Amino acid sequence: MKVGIIGATGYGGLELIRFLHTHPEVEKLELFTSSDEGTIFSSRFGHLLTIHDDSLKKIDEDTLASFDVVFTSTPSGVTSKLLPPLVGSGPKLIDLSGDYRLKQPELYKEWYKKEPAPFELLQESVYGLTEWNEKQIKDAKIIANPGCYPTAVLLSILPLIKEKLIDPNYLIIDAKSGVSGAGNKPSQATHFSETNENFSIYKINEHQHIPEIEQAIQLFTDVNTTVTFNTHLVPMTRGILSTTYAPAITGVTEKQLNECLVETYKNDPFVRVISGASSLGTNRVKGSNFCDISIKLDERTNRVTIISVIDNLVKGAAGQAIQNMNVQFGLPQTHGLNLVPLFI
Amino acid sequence: MKVGIIGATGYGGLELIRFLHTHPEVEKLELFTSSDEGTIFSSRFGHLLTIHDDSLKKIDEDTLASFDVVFTSTPSGVTSKLLPPLVGSGPKLIDLSGDYRLKQPELYKEWYKKEPAPFELLQESVYGLTEWNEKQIKDAKIIANPGCYPTAVLLSILPLIKEKLIDPNYLIIDAKSGVSGAGNKPSQATHFSETNENFSIYKINEHQHIPEIEQAIQLFTDVNTTVTFNTHLVPMTRGILSTTYAPAITGVTEKQLNECLVETYKNDPFVRVISGASSLGTNRVKGSNFCDISIKLDERTNRVTIISVIDNLVKGAAGQAIQNMNVQFGLPQTHGLNLVPLFI
Amino acid sequence: MKVGIIGATGYGGLELIRFLHTHPEVEKLELFTSSDEGTIFSSRFGHLLTIHDDSLKKIDEDTLASFDVVFTSTPSGVTSKLLPPLVGSGPKLIDLSGDYRLKQPELYKEWYKKEPAPFELLQESVYGLTEWNEKQIKDAKIIANPGCYPTAVLLSILPLIKEKLIDPNYLIIDAKSGVSGAGNKPSQATHFSETNENFSIYKINEHQHIPEIEQAIQLFTDVNTTVTFNTHLVPMTRGILSTTYAPAITGVTEKQLNECLVETYKNDPFVRVISGASSLGTNRVKGSNFCDISIKLDERTNRVTIISVIDNLVKGAAGQAIQNMNVQFGLPQTHGLNLVPLFI
Amino acid sequence: MKVGIIGATGYGGLELIRFLHTHPEVEKLELFTSSDEGTIFSSRFGHLLTIHDDSLKKIDEDTLASFDVVFTSTPSGVTSKLLPPLVGSGPKLIDLSGDYRLKQPELYKEWYKKEPAPFELLQESVYGLTEWNEKQIKDAKIIANPGCYPTAVLLSILPLIKEKLIDPNYLIIDAKSGVSGAGNKPSQATHFSETNENFSIYKINEHQHIPEIEQAIQLFTDVNTTVTFNTHLVPMTRGILSTTYAPAITGVTEKQLNECLVETYKNDPFVRVISGASSLGTNRVKGSNFCDISIKLDERTNRVTIISVIDNLVKGAAGQAIQNMNVQFGLPQTHGLNLVPLFI
Repeated sequence: MKVGIIGATGYGGLELIRFLHTHPEVEKLELFTSSDEGTIFSSRFGHLLTIHDDSLKKIDEDTLASFDVVFTSTPSGVTSKLLPPLVGSGPKLIDLSGDYRLKQPELYKEWYKKEPAPFELLQESVYGLTEWNEKQIKDAKIIANPGCYPTAVLLSILPLIKEKLIDPNYLIIDAKSGVSGAGNKPSQATHFSETNENFSIYKINEHQHIPEIEQAIQLFTDVNTTVTFNTHLVPMTRGILSTTYAPAITGVTEKQLNECLVETYKNDPFVRVISGASSLGTNRVKGSNFCDISIKLDERTNRVTIISVIDNLVKGAAGQAIQNMNVQFGLPQTHGLNLVPLFI
Repeated sequence: MKVGIIGATGYGGLELIRFLHTHPEVEKLELFTSSDEGTIFSSRFGHLLTIHDDSLKKIDEDTLASFDVVFTSTPSGVTSKLLPPLVGSGPKLIDLSGDYRLKQPELYKEWYKKEPAPFELLQESVYGLTEWNEKQIKDAKIIANPGCYPTAVLLSILPLIKEKLIDPNYLIIDAKSGVSGAGNKPSQATHFSETNENFSIYKINEHQHIPEIEQAIQLFTDVNTTVTFNTHLVPMTRGILSTTYAPAITGVTEKQLNECLVETYKNDPFVRVISGASSLGTNRVKGSNFCDISIKLDERTNRVTIISVIDNLVKGAAGQAIQNMNVQFGLPQTHGLNLVPLFI
Repeated sequence: MKVGIIGATGYGGLELIRFLHTHPEVEKLELFTSSDEGTIFSSRFGHLLTIHDDSLKKIDEDTLASFDVVFTSTPSGVTSKLLPPLVGSGPKLIDLSGDYRLKQPELYKEWYKKEPAPFELLQESVYGLTEWNEKQIKDAKIIANPGCYPTAVLLSILPLIKEKLIDPNYLIIDAKSGVSGAGNKPSQATHFSETNENFSIYKINEHQHIPEIEQAIQLFTDVNTTVTFNTHLVPMTRGILSTTYAPAITGVTEKQLNECLVETYKNDPFVRVISGASSLGTNRVKGSNFCDISIKLDERTNRVTIISVIDNLVKGAAGQAIQNMNVQFGLPQTHGLNLVPLFI
Repeated sequence: MKVGIIGATGYGGLELIRFLHTHPEVEKLELFTSSDEGTIFSSRFGHLLTIHDDSLKKIDEDTLASFDVVFTSTPSGVTSKLLPPLVGSGPKLIDLSGDYRLKQPELYKEWYKKEPAPFELLQESVYGLTEWNEKQIKDAKIIANPGCYPTAVLLSILPLIKEKLIDPNYLIIDAKSGVSGAGNKPSQATHFSETNENFSIYKINEHQHIPEIEQAIQLFTDVNTTVTFNTHLVPMTRGILSTTYAPAITGVTEKQLNECLVETYKNDPFVRVISGASSLGTNRVKGSNFCDISIKLDERTNRVTIISVIDNLVKGAAGQAIQNMNVQFGLPQTHGLNLVPLFI
């Protein structure tokens, strides 16, 4: 397989490189750039010395046409313009930016404050939540790879909503992310001295992943709801933990909730259901493509606490993107992704 | 004033020392121990060299009787036995452990899994949430200094419940704390390599601060409710941020919510209301006795997001204890506590 | 006293504010800016809400003339131009940038790659290493406040060089600093995700503090030497630890080395000599103006290991600057500076 | 291949599992314990759920005899007693503890304060610094896997000593390590709140890796020297950076020094020489088996600064151990070890 990456200098791109370099079916990996043509990649990212010493190539439609798959891992607002000419030109397209996730262009405008991608392509793109959309992903020309937060949240709540075990009308989602989610561009908010030893809430009730979560709930469970969703910045590099609160449907037991999750994911290699945990941390999945999920029913309040942890750069970005590529090419989902979590 | 500390080697005790050493009315500060009598304190805590080079003294009722105030900063289950003989013997008692907070002994047993303090003393003790209980604190013999989480949570939600601006029947409180809240005793859960770069939820729906929060809501607002409350461990040393979600009472505006908070705390030097913030972090209050509060009304869901930050060791422990001491002795609340937050 | 700060938005400036706000002799504190005139300071630095709600003032010679002291805490290359008109106009000037430290303009040019301050002013400025230059500081018009690294290094090695207990011709100084030393301006090198969990060496053999250290050794001990000096970035916010290696003069004992340090600093409130330590960390001095020093003679090699820890923003910047102000105004050195280290 | 691990619950053991689970030649991996027989491994280390759900087995000579290789990753003082009966019984033995590194039993006693392993086995064991001892490793019955610090230090200085480009009589080695080097057992020194935001020096001039370094210098270069070596604790989990200072032999150029390193390691896949770097950090090698080395000649002092970075748990422990196993079994050194560094 010939694989290209546009946006390789971002953290999503670097993680794609990390996994694709040990993927058994990838024979050629090339990195494309709009601005740094010719730069030896390992001269800029020293950790890749002897691993990826090729230079960055110019983005060129004819060149890209010969590739099997092209990942785009750019800031939002870029691939809305960049991808249209490439659709149907040859390679499968897997977009890690948010530009192809929302079906309604006006929602994109409202939450991203940017111009949306062409309407037809938005409809054609397939939402790449692998465990829930495998059949669609198989034949997709463009995959809209899910956001990091939505991945963690949706995998943990969709089964319970679908099986009507929790009340979807009062979902409170409190999510926490490591700083790598903010990307590699320096800013005051990610300046070490001000981020370190500081836990903060940001974009209060205004995160652009809100409509993505609501749209996916509708897509996969036919439930139309508005959710409360907030995001916090954790002084660490990798990891997302989401804590979701929902009323249990009357009579539902913790056992039922657990079994629903276990049953849903029994054939999915990357989702692990943890029963009866009294604590759960992001280090369980660090550096890996796993999503670990645990639930507790609080009998005092009859509310369910649903916890989910992922590595935001892997299952929340590059890992899931490669998982989708594997699905598209009929490979085992675990190809190139069976790395053991680092734990520490 | 002569001030004694029992439990000085814990982090709460060390913070008491940090502030009391610059308190203008404290003439004598002595540290008492049940086990390390004679140890030069600064030989164990080198940062206090030249500041507190005295030795630890034996806990002795007669000696303590001559003190004006004695702080007890021990693990739970200690002062339930230690304090009874000291009550009325002379010094004001300010207990930073949880042993005197819950009025109902059976609740203490249930949540702390330990033997409660004597019933009469539980009734006599005064809950030391300074801003809400100043009059009672003034004349208290025993002050039950509030827990770190309850302090952050209660200061932010009590005004809105009292003024009936939010629905108290659906309070979801998602709290996050730095690791110092777990105390100074090494354990696997606080071992650097396993805590660092790891964000985790713990004691899911089982934290002993739950009944304390519910009791205080009733005490100060006459509302009887059960809350959902969860706690998370942040890989940093100091700070608590609590995010509370509640339905707004129909018709209530963000302006009203803000004004309620501003009005409630207009004369309180340590509570700062932040209007219109889009982000809020624990570094605003680091090392200081401030509690900063901000709210947002989400018009999509008509739910309120209530955010509160404190330094768990200061406003959440030693700082509030000294604030209570100041109230008891008719001193300005800010005496010894007007340190500027470190920010970084 | 009326005190002004130019460059208040940097970390050095923020620390000046933190200490000056509790300084008993400071009646008025005003912040000056070249670009943000009119900005309410606490709207930008929320931790100062209710503490410093004044606006930034325009830098104006006439206004500044009425102040007792003006601190300049700017990047290098600014005060070389800004200060000349203010010299002799009224206020004492204490410069925290490096612009007035090197007596030889060509050295400044070589190491800072910028235009030096006027030659006469360089000669007139007094190096503000308080414990070693108190008499000169008292009457100085301009104080060149020492760099963070040189402060840690010099306080620990000067006594041993002066008393000829170590060989000054083979000084290896290996220094390590928290990230706040790099200032508040975001960059790739201080971007959280790339600094966190990363320990690095930087400016190998090229740090601009090298000539400052060599000049001060000559100034205070009459020894002319070249030193090896390297700097490392520690993934933490505050603190410097310097480890210096030097051959012991034949026959010198560890006891002699210790006594030399103890004797040198016996009347200095902020230098603490730690004898016989087997470990030493920056948390001993965190947030405070202390410099803690410890030495070990390795009998296998007859070399001395000299260790020194400071808070780079306090004794290495703002704290020492205020200490110098106290000396200039005949106040106790500890005025406004007797805060207890945070330890955690 | 059948592979056993004794001491799997330590960080070295966990890293062995991480790499061996993706090693193409390892068919069976079993974990042995002296105390927790029967425990399902993933119930204790949740990150290994679905990856290693086997139970811990009892250490038994007969069982172990059928294995191809057994790694021992225990604290020091254990394998000195545990290994003797296994020598020659079947499996190759690779010991990650320090018990078989020092050839002279009295040195072990002096620096480890424990009873040494049998003299004959100490002589028989082969020091597993792969790049320098490949031929001996191939046929070894017991491999003494090098310590983390010695690995980083030796790889960077041995070529320069051997080629007589630096003076070995004045080696100052200043090493810094992440906290995982201290193992998984909780202690005050590794308690999060006291390690976080604290950089410290420890075991000043007394680290047990000193005689190991000196012995290896003699073994590989025939130079007999005493070194100055100090170790520091960095508030991060993984990584070692060592900074070594040595006088350059007169006339030697930076180019020569660089070429010496490049030439030495031209066929070694895990050692990367970085020319002309002005900074170098541990994140270049994080999670991988690389050792990156850079040197600078300071022309002012004619001293060389030699910098080396490794992941202490990989090239400094488990990775090098597997590299040695590969050598012993005639496999490519990179088998199971070609993971890309994480960088962030």
